[in-house]
Amino acid sequence: MMKFYYAPHTCSLASHIALEEVGADYEAIRVDFKTSQQRSPDYLAMNPKGRVPMLVTARGIITETPAILAYIAQIHPASELAPLNDPFALAEVQSLTSYLCSTVHPAHSHGIRGARWADDPAAHEAMKAKVPQNMTENFTVLEDQFFRGPWVMGKTYSIVDPYLFTIAGWLKQDHVDINSFPRVADHYARMKERPAVARALAVVHGTA
Amino acid sequence: MMKFYYAPHTCSLASHIALEEVGADYEAIRVDFKTSQQRSPDYLAMNPKGRVPMLVTARGIITETPAILAYIAQIHPASELAPLNDPFALAEVQSLTSYLCSTVHPAHSHGIRGARWADDPAAHEAMKAKVPQNMTENFTVLEDQFFRGPWVMGKTYSIVDPYLFTIAGWLKQDHVDINSFPRVADHYARMKERPAVARALAVVHGTA
Repeated sequence: MMKFYYAPHTCSLASHIALEEVGADYEAIRVDFKTSQQRSPDYLAMNPKGRVPMLVTARGIITETPAILAYIAQIHPASELAPLNDPFALAEVQSLTSYLCSTVHPAHSHGIRGARWADDPAAHEAMKAKVPQNMTENFTVLEDQFFRGPWVMGKTYSIVDPYLFTIAGWLKQDHVDINSFPRVADHYARMKERPAVARALAVVHGTA
Repeated sequence: MMKFYYAPHTCSLASHIALEEVGADYEAIRVDFKTSQQRSPDYLAMNPKGRVPMLVTARGIITETPAILAYIAQIHPASELAPLNDPFALAEVQSLTSYLCSTVHPAHSHGIRGARWADDPAAHEAMKAKVPQNMTENFTVLEDQFFRGPWVMGKTYSIVDPYLFTIAGWLKQDHVDINSFPRVADHYARMKERPAVARALAVVHGTA
């Protein structure tokens, strides 16, 4: 059985939902960020990056959301969470997971983890101040250019959907109104109605 | 024929090398960052993110390095640039392309593109000052935990190799000595000897 390491309020939610969508055989293990468990020797021995998500499989460890999402889709092909045999369509999916991990997620992180990129507290405040602008720009690109509807990639639900849902859930904290992006907001509401999403959220929020 | 949009000194070099490795049928088109061509209406109409790399295929446009690299591997399976039919091994490859795009590339970018994340010039200086530390930390993880040798993933050359080569080439500008990471430094030197790498570099540097 796979072991999935997650923490509340992090991007691990995307992979968590995907595991639930495919009915994966896994155990969810919470990493306590409040006690910096992700920086403990035991955790760093498994994942030297000290982050979540981490998926422990029979073959070894996988980290990074886009890699875990594509892996879940590939080992559960019947769930059709990614167009595995259509290189162009798969590239479109992976272009979005890459954009979310390399541009949108860091844009958000500058509001809470400025210490990663500068030591000066004044710089952290300057970064925090720009988060709403950057998240607005990124979500404008997502809403206007990439969101096809009803799901991100069009008619077919894919691994991009839980990832967009996860990051869209951070907009409130980033002082950006999700309703400025009507298609993203509608997607967010419909995602919450999916049983797999509800199951993952119940575990993360401790109400399962 | 595909069209590949690139710019010197950017991460587009990774995809450029991969296209040369597989002998792809493509035309390389330079985007002039000095005149901000990537922000011109014509370019933004194709790629609203205003960045490189961009690959224009018969089906449409692909952006983001990890997506382009995986696409090149998938449409040229005989080149074996990725373990397409081994989900775990492919996830290990994609974990590295994700790490390079989401953590290592942004760590570098804070030295030259601080304006992306803060408006205060003092904050840009604070970000710049931390670049050597962050790049050193990231390359320590790459050197000690992920580099298998002789290539990044072990015996088999993959799409990760040109990506690591590209970012390792930025270390000097980031005031980090590549020789602090002997395996990465050795890899960098061997990469330069590959004909595909030499061909891509000759085009990028205008000496082709």
